[in-house]
Amino acid sequence: MPEVVYLNGQFVESEKAVISIHDRGFLFGDAVYEAIRSYSGRLWAMERHLRRLRRSLQEIDMGYVDVNTIAEVIERAYRRSEFADASVYLQITRGVQPRRHAYTHKLAPTVLVTVRDITPMLARINWEGESVMTAPDVRWKRCDIKSTNLLPNVLAHTAAIEGGAHEAVLYDAEGYVTEAASMTVFCVENGCVLTTPLGEEILPSITRQFVVEMAADEGIPLREERVSLERFRKAGEVFLASTSHEVCPVTKVDGRPVGDGKAGPVTRRLMEGFKTRVAAGDDGVRA
Amino acid sequence: MPEVVYLNGQFVESEKAVISIHDRGFLFGDAVYEAIRSYSGRLWAMERHLRRLRRSLQEIDMGYVDVNTIAEVIERAYRRSEFADASVYLQITRGVQPRRHAYTHKLAPTVLVTVRDITPMLARINWEGESVMTAPDVRWKRCDIKSTNLLPNVLAHTAAIEGGAHEAVLYDAEGYVTEAASMTVFCVENGCVLTTPLGEEILPSITRQFVVEMAADEGIPLREERVSLERFRKAGEVFLASTSHEVCPVTKVDGRPVGDGKAGPVTRRLMEGFKTRVAAGDDGVRA
Repeated sequence: MPEVVYLNGQFVESEKAVISIHDRGFLFGDAVYEAIRSYSGRLWAMERHLRRLRRSLQEIDMGYVDVNTIAEVIERAYRRSEFADASVYLQITRGVQPRRHAYTHKLAPTVLVTVRDITPMLARINWEGESVMTAPDVRWKRCDIKSTNLLPNVLAHTAAIEGGAHEAVLYDAEGYVTEAASMTVFCVENGCVLTTPLGEEILPSITRQFVVEMAADEGIPLREERVSLERFRKAGEVFLASTSHEVCPVTKVDGRPVGDGKAGPVTRRLMEGFKTRVAAGDDGVRA
Repeated sequence: MPEVVYLNGQFVESEKAVISIHDRGFLFGDAVYEAIRSYSGRLWAMERHLRRLRRSLQEIDMGYVDVNTIAEVIERAYRRSEFADASVYLQITRGVQPRRHAYTHKLAPTVLVTVRDITPMLARINWEGESVMTAPDVRWKRCDIKSTNLLPNVLAHTAAIEGGAHEAVLYDAEGYVTEAASMTVFCVENGCVLTTPLGEEILPSITRQFVVEMAADEGIPLREERVSLERFRKAGEVFLASTSHEVCPVTKVDGRPVGDGKAGPVTRRLMEGFKTRVAAGDDGVRA
């Protein structure tokens, strides 16, 4: 089964799916997106993804888009795919208009949904521990909006890959870790999980929130606080998290081992907890 | 004569010009662009635009793109248009690849050139004086790269238009003016022209550089220094500049008149100097 592609009202062949050169998503990155994961035939944490999508749309002055209809489209595309474990990508652009910075209100949005089998991607992850490189965070100041203005993410992520790492962990001008180029990041210091507080500097990651809640449930200490690069590099454990990667241990930062160089006990507990909960249909206790 | 559109090796009808949904320009804003102006059948400051394009491409790790070939395409598209006064838009994306953050090197780039008659746009500008609104600069930290990650520009610009102004003038976290959402900006204080120094915070605007050189030639004092919003608001004169707008007087900032509320003497001198030089085929003395 190849990738399923839905574009503006119809299902189309992936190779033939095209948009106008006048699409504002193409010309200005005037677009938002979501990436949703399915487990064994069920889309995970849909309500939370839809809530974040609604917020992203509102923040870019596209609050008029009917997210309930989008949700139906996502469900239809997913069911059509027949993939048990899929990655569903949704992108909504402001629509087509002759190029000029100022947009017209309530243009017909461009709606794209793709559904891919996620298993080949998962097979490439080293679940015993990945390595990360650190890099300056040069992104815009509204990373809480899940927009397609992703050039800085792409550059940092690719540089990390080419440096032999799995992902780039970003730090701000003051030297504090924000998040990773395509994921969120945590570290563990003296048994306490630390992660960047929510704000305009980071994406309100669904998986991040799930981990925060899971830690509370399981009695694992966790604080949302800014962590300097120096502290981050000395942390006993580090892990990445995202919809596709769930909880993924990091055993090297900038070429140096984290802790004893193996996935640590807190990370492993959260990895297992994540799998168990998701398998039981848990979409987040405070969803 | 409608818009001329060149896309990936051929001239196509504007309405039928489409790109793949897998184009990284669409998915990630993984693309750079230029906007070039013609005067009476001649493209202005092409060498400078090409030099900036080459630099933008290098900075996003696409230095392999042959800019000489791009220059030929631009010339061909422009000649085909038959517009004396045109706006030529060029966009180069990293190309088409199944969606993932990490890019493959030396993908075939997507090359788009459009040529439009600029006279209708020019007719909408009030050459006696436009108004601007100020807004926080929330863009990324590499605004020296002319990328299509333009969502913050689009939001600020549109908010200014809807507030009855012509453009948004942006200020950074420390309260210093950077540039405008789609143009560069200058002010005049005690007869001295002031503009933001070049750096990663602003685009190296071709028109900005032309104004800087023209001021030197004509003995108009000019300093490249950061100007606080407070100073900017008290300036005797303010003007915008861009390839399309040349030198354009600003007579209102956030609803309050600039100076006596009319285009000032320094601005008028630069407006006229610009027109005279460009008409004489001057592409910049230090080009």
